[in-house]
Amino acid sequence: MLRALELAANGPERGINPRVGCVIAAPDGTILGEGWHRGAGTAHAEIAALAAAGADAVRGATAIVTLEPCNHTGRTGPCVDALLGAGIARVVYAVADPGADSSGGGARLRAAGVDVEAGVLAADVDAFLGDWMTTAKLGRPLVTLKWASSLDGRAAASDGSSQWITGAESRNDTHLLRSQHDAIAVGSGTVLADNPSLTARASDGSLLPDQPVPVVFGARSIPEGAKLRQHPRPFQHVDGHDLAAVLRQLRESGIRSLFIEGGPTLASAFVRAGLVDSFVAYLAPTLLGGDRVALTDLGVDTIDGALRLAITDVARLGDDVRITLTPKGQ
Amino acid sequence: MLRALELAANGPERGINPRVGCVIAAPDGTILGEGWHRGAGTAHAEIAALAAAGADAVRGATAIVTLEPCNHTGRTGPCVDALLGAGIARVVYAVADPGADSSGGGARLRAAGVDVEAGVLAADVDAFLGDWMTTAKLGRPLVTLKWASSLDGRAAASDGSSQWITGAESRNDTHLLRSQHDAIAVGSGTVLADNPSLTARASDGSLLPDQPVPVVFGARSIPEGAKLRQHPRPFQHVDGHDLAAVLRQLRESGIRSLFIEGGPTLASAFVRAGLVDSFVAYLAPTLLGGDRVALTDLGVDTIDGALRLAITDVARLGDDVRITLTPKGQ
Repeated sequence: MLRALELAANGPERGINPRVGCVIAAPDGTILGEGWHRGAGTAHAEIAALAAAGADAVRGATAIVTLEPCNHTGRTGPCVDALLGAGIARVVYAVADPGADSSGGGARLRAAGVDVEAGVLAADVDAFLGDWMTTAKLGRPLVTLKWASSLDGRAAASDGSSQWITGAESRNDTHLLRSQHDAIAVGSGTVLADNPSLTARASDGSLLPDQPVPVVFGARSIPEGAKLRQHPRPFQHVDGHDLAAVLRQLRESGIRSLFIEGGPTLASAFVRAGLVDSFVAYLAPTLLGGDRVALTDLGVDTIDGALRLAITDVARLGDDVRITLTPKGQ
Repeated sequence: MLRALELAANGPERGINPRVGCVIAAPDGTILGEGWHRGAGTAHAEIAALAAAGADAVRGATAIVTLEPCNHTGRTGPCVDALLGAGIARVVYAVADPGADSSGGGARLRAAGVDVEAGVLAADVDAFLGDWMTTAKLGRPLVTLKWASSLDGRAAASDGSSQWITGAESRNDTHLLRSQHDAIAVGSGTVLADNPSLTARASDGSLLPDQPVPVVFGARSIPEGAKLRQHPRPFQHVDGHDLAAVLRQLRESGIRSLFIEGGPTLASAFVRAGLVDSFVAYLAPTLLGGDRVALTDLGVDTIDGALRLAITDVARLGDDVRITLTPKGQ
């Protein structure tokens, strides 16, 4: 299994599919073939390993694979069928497939008389798969909500001016977080009001190596001259009415992590929908007052209905304070 | 001067008047008399020391006093006159009298031919006088504004419920701060809405040794059954229209420090008036959204007009974060 995990690490880190490795071994332990998944649309690790071993050599052999063999037809056929067709006698896997459609492979193999052992090095493989595993279970990307506000919770002054509430250190930190997410979400109203570039930049203004895909939520159209159109990655424009449905689509397109930049309307909609996994608030040592709150209506009527979070980190960044939180209980 | 400072420490710590000590010494250094101020309405330190020495003994002697001798008539006459009348030849003092009315004693003594030396151990005496010196310069009490809010700056949920946004540790900390202030301010609207007791209590509910004087700002009358009426110190009811004038009156009544408890209307009025010296925000790890902001309109129109503060402390109290700030530049 350790060898299978090594093989898995050859695969691409991002994308909809997990990194999976497979070793085909003879009953005496001789390795007959190895394979790994090279990304969506290519052969799964089991198929690659079977092909490497050669169809004739594997009858009665053992397949050792990091993830439960899939039991559904996507862009490729079910691995379970391939393993059964090749006459594999024993399958050892680490972690169960969390997908609603693709799981059940272990049970089907067992039902067909194959000797199945699950859970070998499961913790290691689970850690290795990281956010792929989490997002597969959730059926959506991990969502981080970031906002920058004055200490009294305002994102802008009465006239709408907001550059800059927070200092350079906070802004640099935000750019790092952008670069650590697959996609960055913004409301169409904010695109019109602020014309953000949505790139992840170093303090000298140069682009960081990893750029998030910009995703614009909402009905308003994006002007021809919007800076967003200069982003190194083409933006997606999605309807913001069913956030959960949009998130499912984003995950299916390979996006595992989404960074919500705002504005207040989009941010509040995600909070109301209970679709935020991590909250990052940059609080500046200023007071603004007025109507331009960073979060608007969250659907909370009474104090008992407050959205309770747990602080995971408090850091001082220049003159500001950054508070990081998760939903209570997570 | 060190002996004069020791004598000063015999005086009462609170009240409108400073703690002052005075030593009368013969030219050969022999101490002829000592005195200190025992509180408003009693003899000033110089007068007490002169009396202790006896009128005949002090001609040509030196008066060593921690604060510049006063030059005005309050409940007692000017010390300058007494020193001149007694034939004191030399006056040594530590710090200048910061009062607009009472200062100028040093200059008047010099003009009358007395040898005057100022600034001896000035830093020690300044530190010893502490907030008396600060409030004498300001002409008002030191003002601390405290608020408790959700992370998004709300003091209550939409229905007005607010107990409890913050946790027990934050509330205990607030009670300690209450007990460290001479007075506690609250708007009359908050008295009607929340019926606060405004006492400083230990976590077991018992009263702390020092209780702030409750001061109610605003026009609405206090109901007969208000808990405030059970406070160990009688409350003052003041007009909230001219906050600066109220603060001057409070200082003249001996209040050197005022703790603003809220609600949002009173808190925002103090911020707008620029009358806050220290800000203490208790932020709970919750989100509430809605209209019940902890601070309302602060008169800030544009981001350049933001009230800029400097963070002096960030502390985690239980699940909450306490951020302490001062106006920028102080």
